[in-house]
Amino acid sequence: MTDFIQKIPEGDTRERSVCNTCGHIDYENPKIVAGAVVSHDGKILLCRRAIEPRAGFWTLPAGFLESHEQPEEGARREVREEALADITLEGLIGIYTVKRLSQVQMFFRAHFNGKPSFGAGDETLEAKLFAWEDIPWNEIAFPSVTWTLQTWHAGTDAITNLTRFSVVV
Amino acid sequence: MTDFIQKIPEGDTRERSVCNTCGHIDYENPKIVAGAVVSHDGKILLCRRAIEPRAGFWTLPAGFLESHEQPEEGARREVREEALADITLEGLIGIYTVKRLSQVQMFFRAHFNGKPSFGAGDETLEAKLFAWEDIPWNEIAFPSVTWTLQTWHAGTDAITNLTRFSVVV
Repeated sequence: MTDFIQKIPEGDTRERSVCNTCGHIDYENPKIVAGAVVSHDGKILLCRRAIEPRAGFWTLPAGFLESHEQPEEGARREVREEALADITLEGLIGIYTVKRLSQVQMFFRAHFNGKPSFGAGDETLEAKLFAWEDIPWNEIAFPSVTWTLQTWHAGTDAITNLTRFSVVV
Repeated sequence: MTDFIQKIPEGDTRERSVCNTCGHIDYENPKIVAGAVVSHDGKILLCRRAIEPRAGFWTLPAGFLESHEQPEEGARREVREEALADITLEGLIGIYTVKRLSQVQMFFRAHFNGKPSFGAGDETLEAKLFAWEDIPWNEIAFPSVTWTLQTWHAGTDAITNLTRFSVVV
């Protein structure tokens, strides 16, 4: 049974989660999410989620960065795990801070290595290439997926423009 | 006393740190570092570190992003804490992954709000504006400070170029 209390550790200036049993300090830092817009002939790879949150809704392949992993590696790994696709990254589309969830999300432009090949990974019901006009906007899982797709479609990397680069919610 | 063991939690695929006493899983995700190159008339604000690691060496003001904090907010906070300066961010210079330390570092271009005003915060011995030719390259605290300064000096944001945007060490 975890038994965490909120207190300011010695030498610190902020309240942290400290285990009442063993004294372990659980520093809660923002988590990085890395993902990709994988496109082919103007069509975009989306995955229908098999798991909560937002099971049944469409998302870009993306997930939490693992320890000692580069964001680019994380994006490639998530695309491989969720959409069974091998990709090459081309550049950064944008960085989105979801303050409520304490997440910093990084999305990259990408293309398939070789002929498009993809499928449904364990956390995916189906993976599919969508033409821009066929994207199911009402069935998108998360707001940052919509922002990323719109920035991708606008055709310019958003990151040099602070107001577009980082949407805060 | 903390008593963590390495094991794969149920439903997971990776080994995690799990407290043997209370069962708490300590997911170790990469930490985000946010900082800024604050310049005025071509001179750059550097801070001489009062604390380890690398006490006595010069660094850009930067530090760990806090929970629910946007990278831009973190950069501004760190500049305020370490160099007692209020700044406005202009854009992202680069993102550097330090795999060994499991850090993803984000540096922004910035200028002072109003007339340059700065000083030494608690973790700083002295803060000083350096002309490019006076930067003490042999006394720089961390490699990512050097990379960031070089990218800043090259005058272009590095982030649209993946090979420059993300140096991995």
